[in-house]
Amino acid sequence: MSAAHQALRAARSAGREVAVTVIEATDHTSYSACGIPYWIAGDVASGEELVARTAEEHRAAGVDLRLGARATAIDVEDRTVTHEVDGVSSTMSYDDLVLATGASPIPPDWACGPDGPVGGVHAVKNLDDGALWVDLLAATARRVTDRAPRAVVVGGGYIGIEMAEALLRRGFSTTLITRGRVMGSLDEDLGGRIGVGLVEAGVELRTGATVERLETTEGRVEAVVTAAGERFTADVVVPALGVEPATALGRAAGLAVGSHGGYLPDPGGRIAPGVWAAGDCCEVEHRMSGRPTFLALGTHANKLGRIVGDNLLGGDRRFGGALGTAITRFVAGSVHLEIARTGLSTAEATTHGHDVVSLVTEGTTASGYMPEATPIATKVIADRQTRRLLGVQIVGGEGSAKRIDAAAAALWGGLDVDDLAGMDLSYAPPFATVWDALQIAARRLAERI
Amino acid sequence: MSAAHQALRAARSAGREVAVTVIEATDHTSYSACGIPYWIAGDVASGEELVARTAEEHRAAGVDLRLGARATAIDVEDRTVTHEVDGVSSTMSYDDLVLATGASPIPPDWACGPDGPVGGVHAVKNLDDGALWVDLLAATARRVTDRAPRAVVVGGGYIGIEMAEALLRRGFSTTLITRGRVMGSLDEDLGGRIGVGLVEAGVELRTGATVERLETTEGRVEAVVTAAGERFTADVVVPALGVEPATALGRAAGLAVGSHGGYLPDPGGRIAPGVWAAGDCCEVEHRMSGRPTFLALGTHANKLGRIVGDNLLGGDRRFGGALGTAITRFVAGSVHLEIARTGLSTAEATTHGHDVVSLVTEGTTASGYMPEATPIATKVIADRQTRRLLGVQIVGGEGSAKRIDAAAAALWGGLDVDDLAGMDLSYAPPFATVWDALQIAARRLAERI
Repeated sequence: MSAAHQALRAARSAGREVAVTVIEATDHTSYSACGIPYWIAGDVASGEELVARTAEEHRAAGVDLRLGARATAIDVEDRTVTHEVDGVSSTMSYDDLVLATGASPIPPDWACGPDGPVGGVHAVKNLDDGALWVDLLAATARRVTDRAPRAVVVGGGYIGIEMAEALLRRGFSTTLITRGRVMGSLDEDLGGRIGVGLVEAGVELRTGATVERLETTEGRVEAVVTAAGERFTADVVVPALGVEPATALGRAAGLAVGSHGGYLPDPGGRIAPGVWAAGDCCEVEHRMSGRPTFLALGTHANKLGRIVGDNLLGGDRRFGGALGTAITRFVAGSVHLEIARTGLSTAEATTHGHDVVSLVTEGTTASGYMPEATPIATKVIADRQTRRLLGVQIVGGEGSAKRIDAAAAALWGGLDVDDLAGMDLSYAPPFATVWDALQIAARRLAERI
Repeated sequence: MSAAHQALRAARSAGREVAVTVIEATDHTSYSACGIPYWIAGDVASGEELVARTAEEHRAAGVDLRLGARATAIDVEDRTVTHEVDGVSSTMSYDDLVLATGASPIPPDWACGPDGPVGGVHAVKNLDDGALWVDLLAATARRVTDRAPRAVVVGGGYIGIEMAEALLRRGFSTTLITRGRVMGSLDEDLGGRIGVGLVEAGVELRTGATVERLETTEGRVEAVVTAAGERFTADVVVPALGVEPATALGRAAGLAVGSHGGYLPDPGGRIAPGVWAAGDCCEVEHRMSGRPTFLALGTHANKLGRIVGDNLLGGDRRFGGALGTAITRFVAGSVHLEIARTGLSTAEATTHGHDVVSLVTEGTTASGYMPEATPIATKVIADRQTRRLLGVQIVGGEGSAKRIDAAAAALWGGLDVDDLAGMDLSYAPPFATVWDALQIAARRLAERI
């Protein structure tokens, strides 16, 4: 939808006409998928609040929006798209095609029973899933009254820990099972702190564990059994194993995908003559490595969407790359953890040939004497030879996460650890120490290189 | 003290000996002056909590610390300092001298009566002042029981609004009188919002007003009278007219000062052979303009102090310049305002010859559907020809202020508005909109250039 609207805006400001048709398989557009765990947690009253622009608003802005229309085939030579509505198939031609098919949750092999989907087990992806989960949790709490209702989350990434937060806050005894570590996109020395926080908030945590099968009663989940033979009673199960680019349509039409399975747009968004792609169905260029990477995030999706919208009408805008910046939080009971990363992790930087030097520094988010002060741990990762910043990771209390943006800006500018240590960041007692936690971390690393 | 400790560290790591003597006129060292308003407000239990390192800790680290010792003269030819303790004068020689005499509150001409200082009127600078204010407010609240105790703050800068917050929170009816605008270091379109917040929290605000005289009874202030003839009952009065570099000692010894009255250290901290300076007694180079400016802030003081400490022993470290980054807040009653700026204001940028283009953009600190979302207004200032970022200012609710650091990092790197609009800043619903407020502001400005 970003591409659609930007194309309309670009046409309008150029005094041109453009006809924009959007084919959408579901009944929803322009909603915040990232908001769904907070809806389930109870922070957001309804799914409608997550909708940034309604179908009516899109149409009023000039978009020919076809909901419940599933694209079934594209022909990039003839420039046509075939789509199906209520079982009726039709084909339309295009001058330019934008693929924005997003990503799909990776389906676990244990989620379906021999008789199909198991009750109580459901992915968290779109608004319909959100509504289902809100109802499912309420129904489960009504049904299970002799003990606390029990949930198992499978997967320790962003959605996994956000759903663990939502379930705890909804009164569910919660187990989190993950194949690897919790928040494996952070280095272990910081990521490990998140597991500690989960346990402190009451999550039963199993890292390095895989689910082997579900036990069911009358088509409903009863327990989750791991490969190691552990059995966890479960009234509901959240599979949160990550997502993969939804590119079947393009692959069937002969369009290339990268090693992560996503389309490979050039910086202007083109993937073939007359064909463009944006969003979670794409791999994006990592600004630090120059290599395509899969980062399913609304930030890149929106940016690339607007770039495509401009370039469709002859613009020459270019995507500047991604840094892998990401934040989330885990807030439950007395635990308030904020989690952030940008740039390359130690493993990624090593893979890309850097001689990596790094340091974790403990600090506080505000002057130590202020009531706002909470601990913050900052890891700075740099190249030993060039002193260039490669990445920064943060785990801390309230006020920690958004500090990553200063590091992201420094990475964007290609700055080094001495720049980060010396730059003029802000200070006042309720907000920082005189040397901000980020700068103390950079300075201490700079002193060691 | 930063310079002293860094010199000791540098000597230790070089296997050298250095004798460091510190001459300090008061009985306090290494305390957070910025924390004093929060101590007065009640956030901090005692002045001791504001002390980062005690005299004993300094001495244990090897500093020969002389408290209550006032330097009265220096001779930069003979390399001697004369100082006075309990009326006894003595002279010591040095190899290198570091001037770190700080800044002094600008004394208002109305603060002294014909018989000397007026009771209830006192500056807020050091720990003794803080203790005096804590006692004064308690005594005033005990004494004035037939109505709310009344305070007048004179000055609308950082200390002025922080003291207004402290006084409101201590139950004082508070008037703020300022010659110009509130927070005149921000452009008027953003700075004006702070005045609105002060009034909303119950402050009686007079902008564009000057104090002419005090009315007193038995040596104690009773009212403040402005040049326009308005009379404000006052049990206590805070003069907060800003500070000026305390350079009398050096000027008497023939050392040069700049147009703001501060020493002019080179990027390594030298002001004359064998003489160095750091902290609020200095002007610092503004990284955006290349010109010396007076920014009395702990951030620069600490950075330059460490640089001097290193360079004293032969190091070659250089101060990278200041951006004028500053934040504060005003929190009272239902009002929570965070205030931040970095880089050049519109007036400063125009003075330095830029063809300025700017825009104020309204946003929210979190996704609109989240309970954390509060309004944030962001002003981005750029050069129309080069598109280079010149400054950013922010006024908004909780979670606004620290966003300035990403802008400061972008300014430090010499980035342009397109970089700020396109860079990979962090997003998650509790923390930001998909395009962070800062990026929406940069993007909207970029579209208009």
